[in-house]
Amino acid sequence: MPGPLSIEHLAAAVERATSGALGAQVIGDPQRVITTVAPLEAAQAGALSFLANPRYRRFAAATQAGALVLSEADQRALFPTGSPTCVLIVCEAAYTWFAFAAQALAESTEPAAGCAPSAVVHPGARIDRSATIGPLAVIDEDSSIGAGVQIGAGCYVGRRVRISEATRLHPGVRIYDGCRIGARCLLHSGAVIGADGFGFAPFRGRWIKIPQSGAVLIGDDVEIGAGTTIDRGAMGDTVIEDGVKIDNQVQIGHNCRIGAHSAIAGCVGIAGSATIGRRCQLGGASMIQGHITIADDSIISGATAITHDVREAGFYTGIYPFMRNRDWERNAVLLRHLDELRERIRRLEAQVRTQQTGSDR
Amino acid sequence: MPGPLSIEHLAAAVERATSGALGAQVIGDPQRVITTVAPLEAAQAGALSFLANPRYRRFAAATQAGALVLSEADQRALFPTGSPTCVLIVCEAAYTWFAFAAQALAESTEPAAGCAPSAVVHPGARIDRSATIGPLAVIDEDSSIGAGVQIGAGCYVGRRVRISEATRLHPGVRIYDGCRIGARCLLHSGAVIGADGFGFAPFRGRWIKIPQSGAVLIGDDVEIGAGTTIDRGAMGDTVIEDGVKIDNQVQIGHNCRIGAHSAIAGCVGIAGSATIGRRCQLGGASMIQGHITIADDSIISGATAITHDVREAGFYTGIYPFMRNRDWERNAVLLRHLDELRERIRRLEAQVRTQQTGSDR
Amino acid sequence: MPGPLSIEHLAAAVERATSGALGAQVIGDPQRVITTVAPLEAAQAGALSFLANPRYRRFAAATQAGALVLSEADQRALFPTGSPTCVLIVCEAAYTWFAFAAQALAESTEPAAGCAPSAVVHPGARIDRSATIGPLAVIDEDSSIGAGVQIGAGCYVGRRVRISEATRLHPGVRIYDGCRIGARCLLHSGAVIGADGFGFAPFRGRWIKIPQSGAVLIGDDVEIGAGTTIDRGAMGDTVIEDGVKIDNQVQIGHNCRIGAHSAIAGCVGIAGSATIGRRCQLGGASMIQGHITIADDSIISGATAITHDVREAGFYTGIYPFMRNRDWERNAVLLRHLDELRERIRRLEAQVRTQQTGSDR
Repeated sequence: MPGPLSIEHLAAAVERATSGALGAQVIGDPQRVITTVAPLEAAQAGALSFLANPRYRRFAAATQAGALVLSEADQRALFPTGSPTCVLIVCEAAYTWFAFAAQALAESTEPAAGCAPSAVVHPGARIDRSATIGPLAVIDEDSSIGAGVQIGAGCYVGRRVRISEATRLHPGVRIYDGCRIGARCLLHSGAVIGADGFGFAPFRGRWIKIPQSGAVLIGDDVEIGAGTTIDRGAMGDTVIEDGVKIDNQVQIGHNCRIGAHSAIAGCVGIAGSATIGRRCQLGGASMIQGHITIADDSIISGATAITHDVREAGFYTGIYPFMRNRDWERNAVLLRHLDELRERIRRLEAQVRTQQTGSDR
Repeated sequence: MPGPLSIEHLAAAVERATSGALGAQVIGDPQRVITTVAPLEAAQAGALSFLANPRYRRFAAATQAGALVLSEADQRALFPTGSPTCVLIVCEAAYTWFAFAAQALAESTEPAAGCAPSAVVHPGARIDRSATIGPLAVIDEDSSIGAGVQIGAGCYVGRRVRISEATRLHPGVRIYDGCRIGARCLLHSGAVIGADGFGFAPFRGRWIKIPQSGAVLIGDDVEIGAGTTIDRGAMGDTVIEDGVKIDNQVQIGHNCRIGAHSAIAGCVGIAGSATIGRRCQLGGASMIQGHITIADDSIISGATAITHDVREAGFYTGIYPFMRNRDWERNAVLLRHLDELRERIRRLEAQVRTQQTGSDR
Repeated sequence: MPGPLSIEHLAAAVERATSGALGAQVIGDPQRVITTVAPLEAAQAGALSFLANPRYRRFAAATQAGALVLSEADQRALFPTGSPTCVLIVCEAAYTWFAFAAQALAESTEPAAGCAPSAVVHPGARIDRSATIGPLAVIDEDSSIGAGVQIGAGCYVGRRVRISEATRLHPGVRIYDGCRIGARCLLHSGAVIGADGFGFAPFRGRWIKIPQSGAVLIGDDVEIGAGTTIDRGAMGDTVIEDGVKIDNQVQIGHNCRIGAHSAIAGCVGIAGSATIGRRCQLGGASMIQGHITIADDSIISGATAITHDVREAGFYTGIYPFMRNRDWERNAVLLRHLDELRERIRRLEAQVRTQQTGSDR
């Protein structure tokens, strides 16, 4: 739960976090205390809210929020002379200012460091004194847990794992032997890092397992959603670069590389040895085939299957448009016989050409 | 495992549960004791079975079941004078009667209440005396666990969570701070309730996290499958209304609302802020885009991507029909050039029109 | 981590495992000690590598690996007189030989048997003396754990579960009451075996749960990926036959049967009562509808929805090909009106026929 901070403190925190990149003007009392964030309609006197889309102006006009972040255009339109109830924070990047402020509020309440008596920590593990190990967590041999790290209840950290400073594992995260997690990462419950990749050689009608001897290397500032799985490399490692954000129930196969600052929405599957560029965005439930490469700055629509390389940045889609089932049934039959339609067109073209020639003669 | 009950007791239990809505006539000994349920072919003398589809009449005719629920038409066709080995329960809604009876059998064996010595319960948590807390479960500060609740081994219940009466968490369920679970719910292993929604603001080529300060509110009589994840709201809550049934590995994004008595099959993904109506049915692996609304009583086929609002109840589908790979390759090429096919048709139409006019002259 | 073995030992291990089916000739010192496996480019003196695809010959020519498995043709082309630095293992099935050798290396380091003091083992459970029970694992009443079984930290094994010899559960696997796991299986973190199938009967606008009284039966040599869920049968069991390999985040519904030696890639969903044949391959994120049957030896492309029976072995696909979003938008509109295109072709054909007839006259 966000803790209380004055608007003046919030503004200073945003300025520090952005190196002063977001100019903002406060109209009203900067000592007003903010305890939480809330949407325009639900906000009360202690809440900070924002207006980013002019469609919601009418909600902003009536909001009970204690403070409101909005653009200058919106401020002039709605509150040309300020507001009697609401402190206005005027900033062109209103949503981004709000995001930084909400972070500052959230960070103002942090847990006490220490190791729960019920946790099972191997004597050969190195735990920084400022780290927190939750109840019934297991930290195995030769692992190293950095400063300010928080390990939630029931987590498992395998052998020779390294977790860098200020990273947080929510309850029930599991990290296999030898994986590395960078600084300031956030891993949600049920995430599994470093399970075996899916590698088998066929031999006389059965499958022979290829031991997966690589690891998973995760950079700094990475977020990994609930139930997401990232497999260790077969030989060589699976790599998640800095600043990547991964939603829930994403599957990333062995030896993939995800470029820095890419965002991957829920239910995406990325097969082994795929390389995703930097700053890509993969929509929910999109599927990336193995061994392919996606160019930097590509955007893939949700529910789209990428079956070959994307060599050029762009916005790509492949979704069967939904329709009423009875229409779909008719269409699906036609779709299965597109080549016949084309053949009929060819025949028509030939006939028309013949007739043309005939009548031209 | 279901416990033993006489057919008379079973019939009384069904009558209570349905307020007498399902009339049923028993032909045979009502004191016959039933210990389990089984399919027609496998059922033995202590088992209850059912016939709901006339296709399976031949199995029913030969069944060894101790009791059989079936319609009057089936009874007349198969056992016009009763059965020497099998008690007949004649009911028009045979499958529904069977379902209620199977529930009554299952409920006749319940565990003893109490808290496992290995569980870690915060002194500030409130646990009803009739609740069961399994081994190595963690119940955190200020949480409240209602009457008859069963918390499985290794579950995590966060701070300020409220779980109402008779709800059951199977081993390894995780509930984040501040979420609420209604009465008589069933949550399966690996389910994660209340992880952060996927919300980031772009800032100079990286992503700034929007703290997710809402919660998840789950109504009464909700079932949630293994590995399913339901994210907390960004601001405001994610809401699952009463009687919703959710299968395994479903992902529900922040600030969604799922209407009462909807059923969601496995592997469905619902992106943030989507609103699903009441009594909807979403087929397996269907995908619902964010911020859209689906009307009450809609049915969505499996593997269908819903990319815009569904304003009217109906049955909707969007699946690329599968075919032999070589046919698909030819078809997929044509599909990518549908506009060229249309252009060729247009040209043909123009040419034919010209010829027509020519020959009319 | 693989342990050290001489090439002579490795060759003997491969010969034992394959009953001498893979002939191999060693060129160089058979006493060279191998400690790990690595790809051609990264391999150092203690590593075993392989060349299976002629495309990578240039990496093989320059490799620093201590030993290299390759075909006779590759050996002749690259190292006709042997290699000064690298022991050559010449085998036609180079990748398969490598796979067996990598297994032998991996198996040369095994954990010590015993039960962690923090594990919670029911007095009514039977644990073989050679089994390993990890910290904070729970083994419930009447379960039986076979010889050499390894149960990872935080696993849950329910009542009356039977796990056969040499099977390994990674941390955080959960097995519900009454399920059976064969010998030499490997289950990854977050897998859930035996949760309730998704079965409800409609009754007056709400759903009545059908108790799921079957179990899950898993054969020998089965691998199950992280986060994969396999539901127990409603009545009767869900069956996974010998040698099946299942990747991460796969969902298998109640009463399915998966034929021996089939391989199922990540994110696949298989709805209830589907029957998959033997030696099938299901590509990532493919979807199998309920109650259908897929013939032995079928191959299904990734992202393909199988909506009716596949009666004949073959290679099947159904994917909407991706394209630039603006092209897709145009195409999708046309796709929704394929029947109109066909109607226009019909009309053209009639008109051309009439003109033909007219000009013939």
